[in-house]
Amino acid sequence: MMQTPLTVGSMLEHAEKFFAKKEVISQTHDQLHRLTYADVGERTRRLMSALNQLGIEKGDRVGTLAWNHHRHLEIYFAAPGMNAVLHTINIRLSPEHIAYIINHAEDQILFIDEDVLPLIESIQDQLKTVKAFVVMTDKDTLPESSLTPFYSYEKLLEIGDPQQAFVTDMDENDPAGMCYTSATTGKPKGVMYSHRGIVLHTMALGLANTAAVSESDVLMPVVPQFHVNAWGMPFAGTWFGSTLVMPGPHFTAKRLADFIERYRVTVTAGVPTIWIGLLRELEQGSYDTSSLRGVLCGGAAAPKGLIQAFEQKLGVPFAHAYGATETTPLVTYSRLKSYQQNLSEEDKINERAKQGALVPGIEMKVIGSNGEAAWNGEDMGELLLRGPWIASEYYKDDRTEEAFHDGWFHTGDVITVDEEGNIQIVDRTKDLIKSGGEWISSVELENAIMAHDKVAEASVVGMPDAEWQERPIACVVLQEDLNETVSKDELLQFIRPKFAKWSLPDDVLFFDEIPKTSVGKFMKRQLRDHVKDHYKV
Amino acid sequence: MMQTPLTVGSMLEHAEKFFAKKEVISQTHDQLHRLTYADVGERTRRLMSALNQLGIEKGDRVGTLAWNHHRHLEIYFAAPGMNAVLHTINIRLSPEHIAYIINHAEDQILFIDEDVLPLIESIQDQLKTVKAFVVMTDKDTLPESSLTPFYSYEKLLEIGDPQQAFVTDMDENDPAGMCYTSATTGKPKGVMYSHRGIVLHTMALGLANTAAVSESDVLMPVVPQFHVNAWGMPFAGTWFGSTLVMPGPHFTAKRLADFIERYRVTVTAGVPTIWIGLLRELEQGSYDTSSLRGVLCGGAAAPKGLIQAFEQKLGVPFAHAYGATETTPLVTYSRLKSYQQNLSEEDKINERAKQGALVPGIEMKVIGSNGEAAWNGEDMGELLLRGPWIASEYYKDDRTEEAFHDGWFHTGDVITVDEEGNIQIVDRTKDLIKSGGEWISSVELENAIMAHDKVAEASVVGMPDAEWQERPIACVVLQEDLNETVSKDELLQFIRPKFAKWSLPDDVLFFDEIPKTSVGKFMKRQLRDHVKDHYKV
Repeated sequence: MMQTPLTVGSMLEHAEKFFAKKEVISQTHDQLHRLTYADVGERTRRLMSALNQLGIEKGDRVGTLAWNHHRHLEIYFAAPGMNAVLHTINIRLSPEHIAYIINHAEDQILFIDEDVLPLIESIQDQLKTVKAFVVMTDKDTLPESSLTPFYSYEKLLEIGDPQQAFVTDMDENDPAGMCYTSATTGKPKGVMYSHRGIVLHTMALGLANTAAVSESDVLMPVVPQFHVNAWGMPFAGTWFGSTLVMPGPHFTAKRLADFIERYRVTVTAGVPTIWIGLLRELEQGSYDTSSLRGVLCGGAAAPKGLIQAFEQKLGVPFAHAYGATETTPLVTYSRLKSYQQNLSEEDKINERAKQGALVPGIEMKVIGSNGEAAWNGEDMGELLLRGPWIASEYYKDDRTEEAFHDGWFHTGDVITVDEEGNIQIVDRTKDLIKSGGEWISSVELENAIMAHDKVAEASVVGMPDAEWQERPIACVVLQEDLNETVSKDELLQFIRPKFAKWSLPDDVLFFDEIPKTSVGKFMKRQLRDHVKDHYKV
Repeated sequence: MMQTPLTVGSMLEHAEKFFAKKEVISQTHDQLHRLTYADVGERTRRLMSALNQLGIEKGDRVGTLAWNHHRHLEIYFAAPGMNAVLHTINIRLSPEHIAYIINHAEDQILFIDEDVLPLIESIQDQLKTVKAFVVMTDKDTLPESSLTPFYSYEKLLEIGDPQQAFVTDMDENDPAGMCYTSATTGKPKGVMYSHRGIVLHTMALGLANTAAVSESDVLMPVVPQFHVNAWGMPFAGTWFGSTLVMPGPHFTAKRLADFIERYRVTVTAGVPTIWIGLLRELEQGSYDTSSLRGVLCGGAAAPKGLIQAFEQKLGVPFAHAYGATETTPLVTYSRLKSYQQNLSEEDKINERAKQGALVPGIEMKVIGSNGEAAWNGEDMGELLLRGPWIASEYYKDDRTEEAFHDGWFHTGDVITVDEEGNIQIVDRTKDLIKSGGEWISSVELENAIMAHDKVAEASVVGMPDAEWQERPIACVVLQEDLNETVSKDELLQFIRPKFAKWSLPDDVLFFDEIPKTSVGKFMKRQLRDHVKDHYKV
């Protein structure tokens, strides 16, 4: 067989040729753009040529601080297309972390959305490697800025050669992209994506067994392009010739609903928070969502009620998926098997509430307290992953060894696997409560408590215990508006039927709020400190 | 990213775990078998272990002379699964060619269907490398045979370890399979398939943009497993958890129709001849074919009437595909684009009569008489291909250089490409008629002549011409049963409206038959000799 490398650039080349007329519909700060893949291809070639002229070379990191729009899409292909590295930066991180990331990745150039300029201006003195700043504006004149040298994206394209070739003579294991993931403690950790990894991952997204992204789709990635390449959706949409709808900066649920109706969106992808907001909007307004064939949900487990609402009220299949920054990210995808089509509605929802089965190409191992966990939906174990789009290390980071050893990526996620091979995340290893040799899932307790009408939020942490090693303590925030209260005993009574007695929390503490990360996850380490303080008082 | 190799064995491992209950339904000489992928997995492991015990090692060629059934499927995974090489042999070739192929590939062991035993017995004295013969029989006792040493497949499985591991620690570029293709002149030519090539090709078959093979499919590969791995369908069906229906030895159109109805087949794949026979059977009998979602057709161009009959009478989408032994084989797949759904029925059929657009992952170049041919549906050029599942050579064969040079596989097929990127095969380079600097497609003339009611077959060859270099001569066989005749002038008049005057045949000769190859293709070289003889007389 020929030794043809799998390259990111070739995916756009395919779209330029075979989907030349298909469109990318893109909302920016100022206007709505409609471009064809022929246009995107030409602009990407111009951009590669302009980057060459600015001195960007093979392996150089090209940073982006931007929302989902066509210019960001073009950089997705231009940077790897010239054998440089696309480095998407999470604009929601603290300025301190953003400065760290840019310096650690040694970004040579930054592409910045207008609204992110003040943030970068505030840290510009700390940036050690950046040689140029480019603002992605629709305006003819450059915005005022202290950044220097400072370019306009569209002006750069003007100096670029529209025929610039993609680099194809490369090793498919060369880095094509990178993304930093926030760590529980310390600085964010970087993950490098190879051309090979991204191309194979994109193929996986096109499989009929998974997301089945195809030419007949109108794809709207709501998950930000600065989160693990928007889960690979911009790559898949382009390679397979879908119409791409990019919702742009500071989108609202209303804009998403409008776009779904106006552009006949068939597939959209995002985190549960987005879908909760969209559901509210769809219930309040009157929108035609009949074009939707799938809502892809990842990043966190979706509550069963949300899945039910989308499936039953809107008639839209809700597809749970699981992955991480270290896994490019698609690892599992939830899809009923053909022989499960006759299950009751409730059983179907229960299946869909799981994270699904491994996508073809990835292998897993589930290691519990006594070796490999059985596939019975009950035994818990840490999920280990292996495959061509799973990272092998953190970029120049001592913490590599904690997560990557013995040939596997140790996800830190505790899961069960049912007989069908569907996984369900039950906890993070570090949040799992180890009590008397048994494992107690903090997440299962939290879900059970949160099912109570009067509870707004619940987080369960393991606290040191002389006899049992650890014991669960529940931390609860009550619904604000109810003016009603609920006692510790009432709550324990409420969840008792679902749990073995020894796994019930020893105590329930009531708080006004629970500390959360920037992406809305409970900060359990801080919560443990609060609980310690509580008992000290 | 991890350096995890893409391996054939891992595809079956995925099915064993995630599609353990799904079935392979297999017709053999004596009975119908129903196995699960868990069964197939265990039997494949036993087979690998037994082959080990027989001394088969890494890189050894494992030959098969067999129809489509579950045992053949198991060898598809067992040979590459142990890092040996699956070598499928076309049982329809001449004994002389079969002996040549087995010796040239240096097969160590042969797996043989009962009805093929006499053929192998007749050439056993010529076989230089075969150390063992295995008959795939359902019977408890070994058939009489002069082959030695001679084993029964099922008895071999009994000595095998059901837990034998697949070899995963290998180079993905290691050979996994091989297949010989008949050449126009001389001995058959061998093509080696790597693990990487087969796995990537299988992914391509699962893409929603192409054949979309998935868990919800019931897949019946009618194309023989000795033809380019049955176009990869057994690999795709297994990896993606489809129910596989294997029609077994000497199947009839009636069996195919029965199986479609009984097992609710959704996708089937084969050459036009098969579909012509099936169509006749479906029209005569009363079958429920409502489960079919696609009929995949390749190997030769399907007549428009056949496509029309399947699509309009049976409501079954007919999908044209193109490939070759050298291309694993899927290269193009015909699928209407979303914006073509409103075309008239006739325009749709015209689109579907083309071979379709390149599947993602493959690149092409089309070289005509004046460089790259324009994508206008008219300019002709030879199709050149490049990609990770395109061969780079013929196995130990001097003829490699003719077809593989400058980094491309020169297919020898002359095509046009329309604006949508859909290709249409118009001729073989060697059959193309070069007249006064222009190219004339023999195939287009043949199709036009065959559209005449009274014509059964037509073949057009280029004959040397002093002034024009070459000129077309049409060779025609009339319909036998009509007792009617048609003159040269009448035929030329009939096709005149469709062609430029200079491209019409100079003469029309009438024959009783036209010489054909074993796979039904016109043997134009011999025909040219006949025409020469005709003019001599």
